[in-house]
Amino acid sequence: MSPFVTADTVRAELGPLLGEGVLATDPDVVAGHSRDQALWCPGEGAVALVRARTVSDVQETMRFATRHRVPVVPQGARTGLSGGANAVPGCLLLSLERMTRVLDVDTSERTVTVEPGIINQDLKDALAPHGLSYPPDPGSVAISSIGGNVATDAGGLCCVKYGVTRDYVRQLRVVLADGTLTTIGTTTTKGVAGLDLRGLFVGSEGTLGVVVEVTLRLVPVLPEPLTAVATFADVRHAAATVADLMASGAQPSLVESMDRTTLRMINAYRDVGLDDGAGAMLLVQSDGSGSPDAARAEVEAFAGFAEAHEAIDVVLSEDPTDSAALVAARRMAQPAYEHHAQTHGGGQLLDDVCLPRHRLPEFYDRLDEIAAESGLTIAVVAHAGDGNTHPSIFFDASDPADVARADAAFDRIMEVGLALGGTITGEHGVGYLKRQWLARELDEGSRRVHRAVKAALDPLGILNPGKMLDAL
Amino acid sequence: MSPFVTADTVRAELGPLLGEGVLATDPDVVAGHSRDQALWCPGEGAVALVRARTVSDVQETMRFATRHRVPVVPQGARTGLSGGANAVPGCLLLSLERMTRVLDVDTSERTVTVEPGIINQDLKDALAPHGLSYPPDPGSVAISSIGGNVATDAGGLCCVKYGVTRDYVRQLRVVLADGTLTTIGTTTTKGVAGLDLRGLFVGSEGTLGVVVEVTLRLVPVLPEPLTAVATFADVRHAAATVADLMASGAQPSLVESMDRTTLRMINAYRDVGLDDGAGAMLLVQSDGSGSPDAARAEVEAFAGFAEAHEAIDVVLSEDPTDSAALVAARRMAQPAYEHHAQTHGGGQLLDDVCLPRHRLPEFYDRLDEIAAESGLTIAVVAHAGDGNTHPSIFFDASDPADVARADAAFDRIMEVGLALGGTITGEHGVGYLKRQWLARELDEGSRRVHRAVKAALDPLGILNPGKMLDAL
Repeated sequence: MSPFVTADTVRAELGPLLGEGVLATDPDVVAGHSRDQALWCPGEGAVALVRARTVSDVQETMRFATRHRVPVVPQGARTGLSGGANAVPGCLLLSLERMTRVLDVDTSERTVTVEPGIINQDLKDALAPHGLSYPPDPGSVAISSIGGNVATDAGGLCCVKYGVTRDYVRQLRVVLADGTLTTIGTTTTKGVAGLDLRGLFVGSEGTLGVVVEVTLRLVPVLPEPLTAVATFADVRHAAATVADLMASGAQPSLVESMDRTTLRMINAYRDVGLDDGAGAMLLVQSDGSGSPDAARAEVEAFAGFAEAHEAIDVVLSEDPTDSAALVAARRMAQPAYEHHAQTHGGGQLLDDVCLPRHRLPEFYDRLDEIAAESGLTIAVVAHAGDGNTHPSIFFDASDPADVARADAAFDRIMEVGLALGGTITGEHGVGYLKRQWLARELDEGSRRVHRAVKAALDPLGILNPGKMLDAL
Repeated sequence: MSPFVTADTVRAELGPLLGEGVLATDPDVVAGHSRDQALWCPGEGAVALVRARTVSDVQETMRFATRHRVPVVPQGARTGLSGGANAVPGCLLLSLERMTRVLDVDTSERTVTVEPGIINQDLKDALAPHGLSYPPDPGSVAISSIGGNVATDAGGLCCVKYGVTRDYVRQLRVVLADGTLTTIGTTTTKGVAGLDLRGLFVGSEGTLGVVVEVTLRLVPVLPEPLTAVATFADVRHAAATVADLMASGAQPSLVESMDRTTLRMINAYRDVGLDDGAGAMLLVQSDGSGSPDAARAEVEAFAGFAEAHEAIDVVLSEDPTDSAALVAARRMAQPAYEHHAQTHGGGQLLDDVCLPRHRLPEFYDRLDEIAAESGLTIAVVAHAGDGNTHPSIFFDASDPADVARADAAFDRIMEVGLALGGTITGEHGVGYLKRQWLARELDEGSRRVHRAVKAALDPLGILNPGKMLDAL
């Protein structure tokens, strides 16, 4: 049996087993679905695209893939930043983006059960009338799917108080490599019957199975936060402020930092009037867990720490519209980076290093060195309350020497992150982009466990090969 | 090579590799460490007891076990209720109870790193001066170890607001079956580098590896709660009150229910003056996430729901001493059950079924039927806010017919739990006691994944055989 199948075979054999319009083999359509939003990751060679509408479509695809030993690349909304959803040669692309239904909202259990293709923001909107909310809010909240969020254990701005995707997954229905459908976890609040396999599938980036249904824990609608903004002469003072704030026992619901370069790029992209004379800005919110007094006390405590670290200016925003505008400006960082890249040589590499909070000032020092050594611009936005930084390296994509410098700087940032006790990825995942680096982060025992678990669940190695687990 | 080793071989070969006084082969000492607190679980045949003081002791033990293919039973404080720490024939008992050090408290990251043998309450006490707290509080908080809590994913009274052990585990150091030491997870707030193996080890009951170090996420000291107590004519009204309370968006920090039989047994054990004329009591606390006003509003909302469900009496406790006494009375349920059993034939079987909250009233109806059919007394205490019930069956341990009836009732309770959408164990774990039932709860795909993961991590099957994963 050949390791590859032709589009003809797929059409003839798999096509009749799928729903109407589910299988696409048109090369343009397939190519148009062959990449996520990562740079520098290959995405060629897909044979066909399955746009599943039902669990059965997924099961038939996996059974076919097992019979023919064909690689399968599961895909959500393809908003990932690590190449995890990119095509590999000879693969079937298995898209879940059409499975978007809300199957059940249980207000007594405070759970929702959804198909994986539903967009995060659409889920939030569907829950609002029930007085419930699903906190995880990756930067891609408006465009990324819950299935993709589960596959990458997505984070976001709320994590500092409300945690990440894994903290909300109660139960998963998963199609295994051979097409078997299984249920993982319980819908009940508690449950310890057997191994907790949820953690194994959450964040597994499509390498162990295909998630076809997700039951999420919900919380009551989040209280309206108060907002404070502080500017500093440089990002180290901002970072030290964050470390003190978090060590004080505060529980802010958002702690974001932007460096000078980021502030300037956001202003250049949309004239939102951020103070880009400042060297750094911190945006902090507290919802006081529903108590306006507690929220006020907490943002005032933040103001105190900021002033102790020589803040240029600290402003408490009383107006929800102003506060929302500030958060919206923060969310513009990535489009602003892209805009800058488009007008400055085209290249942007976005990194995702998470560090112990108290190492952030040192990390910024090292970033300055890397920028100086490489001669490249590096802008940094961070979920600073989590120690999760997103340095972006800008370069001339048409200049091989510049590309090489950017590549080296990207690696150097991860190296520094590891040396400071951090991880190579806080929330974007490993995908193709960081697979070599995963081998550096994990010790030999952990690498062995990864390999053993992968072999146990996907003995033919057909689930998203060449990605997260490929270099271990 | 024989599958068993003699105590002589262990003394001669393993003894010199361990620290002074770590190895015990005295039959009385070994027998005295051969059981946890479960009933009806065998615990014979251990060859030796290793009371590890260092990671090296654990590694040497696992290397020896791998060389000789000897079963190893990891043990914490042996307070488990499912026989998970009981000896199996020919095994080495590997106790972690002497590894009790606090290795690091990081106030900036809000983490603590400990050895696994530290008692949960001792950890809480060590954290208090730092203004930090570790919420999980199983009923065994004063006697169970963190390692055991991790092995069983222990819950407790706070779970309804603050979650279970798995929600607090950041990083584990684990000795694998062959003695390899590996680090699982990250100490940083976020981290998605590779598979999230933490979930795999948390709750694995010693079947996949031996946890030798735990880094836990902490939270600021929990606010002082307000307490309310309501009594009802029967436990169904109490259960309906809980379902309404939780569906309302309330976030109580404790929601415990006791039925009439439990109230009477507690009063008989210690004269604490609970109203045992009532058919059921609900004990509810709210900490308002630090806001006294919010706490008051929440306990008043509870009072409203209780009155709507025909509460006999609702009392708000203003006095922290009174409130603490009420919680202490609730924590007396298990000793009171034991006291009752000792004076009524000796038999108590404690179950641990977790259900969707809104199925609780129906569950209580079915429990009444089971009690009536079996002719046995069944008392029920519940972490009602989580839907996690603990029915206890009392019987004459010297009467084989009564034992058989109790056994049947115990099984019937799990059967009913599964039929109502629940799980056979909310927090006590599977151990030996429920291994056959685990096979009934999990579907074929999940059983297969369990078997594959077990084989991948413990190919010789030496880690805690005959327990959780034995019947899959």
